[in-house]
Amino acid sequence: MSGNTFGKAFRVTTWGESHGPAVGAVVDGCPPGIPLTEEAIQVMMDRRKPGSSAASTTRKEEDLVHILSGVFEGLTTGTPISLMIKNKDAKSSSYDQFKNLFRPGHGDLSYQRKYGIRDYKGGGRASARETAGRVAAGAVAGLLLERVGIKTFAYTLELGSVRAKNIDPEAVSKNPFACPDMEAAEKMEARVNEVRKDGDSLGGIVQVQAAGVPAGLGEPVFDKLDAQIAKAMMSIGAVKGVEIGAGFEAARLTGSVNNDPILEDGFETNNAGGTLSGVSSGQDIVVRVAVKPIPSISVPQQTIGLDGKADTIQVGGRHDISAIPRVNVVCEAMLNLVLADFVLRQAQVRALELFAKQ
Amino acid sequence: MSGNTFGKAFRVTTWGESHGPAVGAVVDGCPPGIPLTEEAIQVMMDRRKPGSSAASTTRKEEDLVHILSGVFEGLTTGTPISLMIKNKDAKSSSYDQFKNLFRPGHGDLSYQRKYGIRDYKGGGRASARETAGRVAAGAVAGLLLERVGIKTFAYTLELGSVRAKNIDPEAVSKNPFACPDMEAAEKMEARVNEVRKDGDSLGGIVQVQAAGVPAGLGEPVFDKLDAQIAKAMMSIGAVKGVEIGAGFEAARLTGSVNNDPILEDGFETNNAGGTLSGVSSGQDIVVRVAVKPIPSISVPQQTIGLDGKADTIQVGGRHDISAIPRVNVVCEAMLNLVLADFVLRQAQVRALELFAKQ
Amino acid sequence: MSGNTFGKAFRVTTWGESHGPAVGAVVDGCPPGIPLTEEAIQVMMDRRKPGSSAASTTRKEEDLVHILSGVFEGLTTGTPISLMIKNKDAKSSSYDQFKNLFRPGHGDLSYQRKYGIRDYKGGGRASARETAGRVAAGAVAGLLLERVGIKTFAYTLELGSVRAKNIDPEAVSKNPFACPDMEAAEKMEARVNEVRKDGDSLGGIVQVQAAGVPAGLGEPVFDKLDAQIAKAMMSIGAVKGVEIGAGFEAARLTGSVNNDPILEDGFETNNAGGTLSGVSSGQDIVVRVAVKPIPSISVPQQTIGLDGKADTIQVGGRHDISAIPRVNVVCEAMLNLVLADFVLRQAQVRALELFAKQ
Amino acid sequence: MSGNTFGKAFRVTTWGESHGPAVGAVVDGCPPGIPLTEEAIQVMMDRRKPGSSAASTTRKEEDLVHILSGVFEGLTTGTPISLMIKNKDAKSSSYDQFKNLFRPGHGDLSYQRKYGIRDYKGGGRASARETAGRVAAGAVAGLLLERVGIKTFAYTLELGSVRAKNIDPEAVSKNPFACPDMEAAEKMEARVNEVRKDGDSLGGIVQVQAAGVPAGLGEPVFDKLDAQIAKAMMSIGAVKGVEIGAGFEAARLTGSVNNDPILEDGFETNNAGGTLSGVSSGQDIVVRVAVKPIPSISVPQQTIGLDGKADTIQVGGRHDISAIPRVNVVCEAMLNLVLADFVLRQAQVRALELFAKQ
Repeated sequence: MSGNTFGKAFRVTTWGESHGPAVGAVVDGCPPGIPLTEEAIQVMMDRRKPGSSAASTTRKEEDLVHILSGVFEGLTTGTPISLMIKNKDAKSSSYDQFKNLFRPGHGDLSYQRKYGIRDYKGGGRASARETAGRVAAGAVAGLLLERVGIKTFAYTLELGSVRAKNIDPEAVSKNPFACPDMEAAEKMEARVNEVRKDGDSLGGIVQVQAAGVPAGLGEPVFDKLDAQIAKAMMSIGAVKGVEIGAGFEAARLTGSVNNDPILEDGFETNNAGGTLSGVSSGQDIVVRVAVKPIPSISVPQQTIGLDGKADTIQVGGRHDISAIPRVNVVCEAMLNLVLADFVLRQAQVRALELFAKQ
Repeated sequence: MSGNTFGKAFRVTTWGESHGPAVGAVVDGCPPGIPLTEEAIQVMMDRRKPGSSAASTTRKEEDLVHILSGVFEGLTTGTPISLMIKNKDAKSSSYDQFKNLFRPGHGDLSYQRKYGIRDYKGGGRASARETAGRVAAGAVAGLLLERVGIKTFAYTLELGSVRAKNIDPEAVSKNPFACPDMEAAEKMEARVNEVRKDGDSLGGIVQVQAAGVPAGLGEPVFDKLDAQIAKAMMSIGAVKGVEIGAGFEAARLTGSVNNDPILEDGFETNNAGGTLSGVSSGQDIVVRVAVKPIPSISVPQQTIGLDGKADTIQVGGRHDISAIPRVNVVCEAMLNLVLADFVLRQAQVRALELFAKQ
Repeated sequence: MSGNTFGKAFRVTTWGESHGPAVGAVVDGCPPGIPLTEEAIQVMMDRRKPGSSAASTTRKEEDLVHILSGVFEGLTTGTPISLMIKNKDAKSSSYDQFKNLFRPGHGDLSYQRKYGIRDYKGGGRASARETAGRVAAGAVAGLLLERVGIKTFAYTLELGSVRAKNIDPEAVSKNPFACPDMEAAEKMEARVNEVRKDGDSLGGIVQVQAAGVPAGLGEPVFDKLDAQIAKAMMSIGAVKGVEIGAGFEAARLTGSVNNDPILEDGFETNNAGGTLSGVSSGQDIVVRVAVKPIPSISVPQQTIGLDGKADTIQVGGRHDISAIPRVNVVCEAMLNLVLADFVLRQAQVRALELFAKQ
Repeated sequence: MSGNTFGKAFRVTTWGESHGPAVGAVVDGCPPGIPLTEEAIQVMMDRRKPGSSAASTTRKEEDLVHILSGVFEGLTTGTPISLMIKNKDAKSSSYDQFKNLFRPGHGDLSYQRKYGIRDYKGGGRASARETAGRVAAGAVAGLLLERVGIKTFAYTLELGSVRAKNIDPEAVSKNPFACPDMEAAEKMEARVNEVRKDGDSLGGIVQVQAAGVPAGLGEPVFDKLDAQIAKAMMSIGAVKGVEIGAGFEAARLTGSVNNDPILEDGFETNNAGGTLSGVSSGQDIVVRVAVKPIPSISVPQQTIGLDGKADTIQVGGRHDISAIPRVNVVCEAMLNLVLADFVLRQAQVRALELFAKQ
């Protein structure tokens, strides 16, 4: 009921606040027999780390993940996998000024109204630090997906209105913006520097994809593959929009153009983004995610205090200019969680075959 | 696991196929003491009815809803409310040609791959007829929301690339496209007629809103208010994109422009679309939904058969030109379901007050 | 949240009140490809029917089950199976005297306190009539279990303190008490007749078993096989106790006697009742269920009214002397639901095999 | 799906194995504003500690609980409460002999069949050590219940066939068996010493109660108060039977004796055990739980190995003679979890009142 768990078969519950002792996740439902080490998870964790990109904060977190349960002699056992990441570099005193003041664009005001109480240090539970648990869990999901031949990946399609024109997968790891277009990456850098000077921040668009997805994943009606993806992406703090395949552009096409013709060796186009009536068709999953600019800016803003009185606020400190590209790996992790869940759920549909084959 | 249930506290399970004996929904978790009649539900059902708009099929369904349980002497009792709508005007023989052929843009192929079996008549479970159950349940949710002062509504922002420029709420009921701009409505009509001649179809954009939403609804992390809304909307068959507030446009703004300043008497702007960190802020909820063109078109299309061999298909029959505006009421119903669920879930957060006040 | 759904993978939601238009169930998660007809379900329904046993009411209900969805050309499709049974022979006027009076042993008082409102006709939702939906769903589950070689059955171990001494499976269908001991059955009849004269009622003990259960069903920790069985049985209105294998007797044994030695060809004894640490061991599941006497008796009883004032009540009408043996088939249906759910859940554990074998 | 989570509104997920780095629990759904400290939880933890009773092992665990999230400045915030207890005194080498051998009465064989892999050290996930997380979570639930006036407690009704005759609540803390009858406690001690000499073990019966339970808790149909209690108790490894109120004895009473007459100032008797049709009536909840003898005994037993070959096993090491009385606090913790969950779920039923009162 409290919304800290994602998935039905491959279930992930995250816990932890920005400035508490630790953050973490419990992964429940992972099948037995999968090789799992802290090192394998760490690879994905490192892509999310502060300081790992050109647009990110200088806060230092080693973000070392600890496996506390669910693995025996290097293999998953089918029992819950408890993952913990300690919080280290948290200067909580720098947040005292926000104790009685609501930061615009943050959850301060809505949390206060919801709970009547609020952990004001670094955003508490609403902090992006919560996503460390998601990424650790998403790495586990990724290992499961690997076993069935599915591979997810994300890149920066747009940052500060600069859009990638060429899509060169090789380029993604060669620039600090995870952009598939080196020329666009340079323009992104210029834009970031400009905005950093102003104490302002930027948004952008992430493209997330999955290859190797077998047909049949996703459940009709409410738990459609695209519906779960939309929820997964929109559950990331900074996300304001999600589209699948042609997305909003599909609204402007005619049916004869938008329908993907089915050929003997596959589909001719992929306007659907890999899903038909909420079930995967065998094509690649293609998702785009709109990321708003980071709300923490040093530009002065109007706000009110706990007492309801007008005030002005300036959020200094070590903040990213943009959630991109650190958020890319979170998007990828969430897509992993969605797909791992549906892989296991599809096993239920084919259960009789499974028992028959035993 | 099978995805036919939506919500956790206010739970709706829909059932039924396009050409089976009936479709319906079970609403579980509705609080006791709410006046509920078949007539009250029917008002919302009638807005979804085939033949109710200029862009819709001529299939005639009375779509009379029957309440089979959960109401005693005109009031809800707190027990499950079973709602049934009989299928009447279903000429299933007209679907025989699709038995061995996959219609492009439909779930035929993905369902076959998922289940190894498929009800090919009218799309079976994947038919838009399934949404009759959603609307009936959404009407019940609407009565609950009314009790706490929340009102949802939807209108056509765009149809066939024609966009409403004026937003005049009064206009919505005065044209057959549920468009808030009479001039745009005329252009929409022209566009629909043009496309009908071609045997083609159109998509568009629906704007869905909620007014009177108290602050505090929605659960942090995975079940954010906007995440559930995204899932709810994307679970509608024709939807390919969802955005909240400024949505994809937010990706191009700087933080200082996108952040909504907080004033003593409310917010200055509503780029957030009514939600901060996944919890309602007290502002109106504003959602836009991209609707793809109806995949059933009489233009010939390439496809394959059950045997994998290439073929050509022409989907005739009584089909809408566009899911809009019939889908508008479905969007509204889904927003009702999301909000009713969160109203009840927020009661849990405030549970100690309730027991203290008893 | 409202507790009208049972199971996670094989999910059953029942709905309906004793004197509403109908009762029913929605079965969600049943795999595709299973032959399913109304006739097959009816066989199990008929065993639960009023008037079907020597200790039952004379209320006449045909209890014909209607399949409204989820079956296409005689096979399940993987979509929700909606089952409806109309209420026919309901003389609701005979319940007017209970409008303002709480019947002892019934849910009248607790429902009133819970909801502040109450459908007083025939117990409303708390009526044993609700179990019609369970049995219909349990019949579907039974067809699934049949496919994996599992067979459940129930018999009357004890009625009105008369206990079966011989366990002869053949005898069960040869006496009106579903007792496996013909001699005991005769004594039961004498006891029932005696108590009927007094206007009183009787309780007893049902034994429910499952044969052919493969090892590995059930989930460790909270959803243990025995824990789900205990919940399933105790969720039947009249049940006050549940024990597995040696049950309460195990509390008096030493470990060396209670442990079931493991031999090369199986276990030597079955004190465990078929489950070890909550997971099936391959032995038969053996459960005993304590059924309280029917609370509706024509003996005068002390009670209070809605106004809290003392009063006397006599519950006449067409009531069973004992819930046994009609409740036996409900116990069997519930065991079916538990096992079908775990069969599907086990498919998740073996999911990688399934994908590997594709 | 994997059964490591209990509850719907007050949700508890436990994780951890006997010989892994730690065990723990995540409590999700606890309302904000409740004072919570590690010390308050520790009080309940200490009652479960090895070495805390006359019938227990000498394994030393400090069992210090750490709160990793969900508490800010001493108050719960409404976000997940992560609780961790490190494993310290685990000599895992002593378990090497069980690597290839199934211990009778343990989950070794069933786990192996379920997962195809097994953490054989100390029973892994099936170890009673898992209940440390339950008790920590149960302590949090207890603090919530305290706020609404509910108090749970457990005592030893029977141990090794010695039954308490007097029920003197004061006596419970005055003997090492948590027995409410000092005379019986002495006999229990004699029985324990006798069995210890034989290398054997004992079972018994725990009585668990709740006082101050308001009417209206529990959900009709499947999630009845007694059904959830039955599941909760049977989910404890050693439990083989559960009964409510008169329990199995009710099966032998007539309706006129078993029904509890309702008087102006309450009920005359409590055969129901505090629940009517699955909803609390305002009376005390009374539950009895059958606990089997500890399966780990040093008496030689027949078993088979991983290879299916017959063998003999002797389980030495530091084992309790009986799960009682350490299991008592686990029963109490589980009753806390059930009741806390229903308190929050009842808030949903009364949600409209809550919103009206705001």
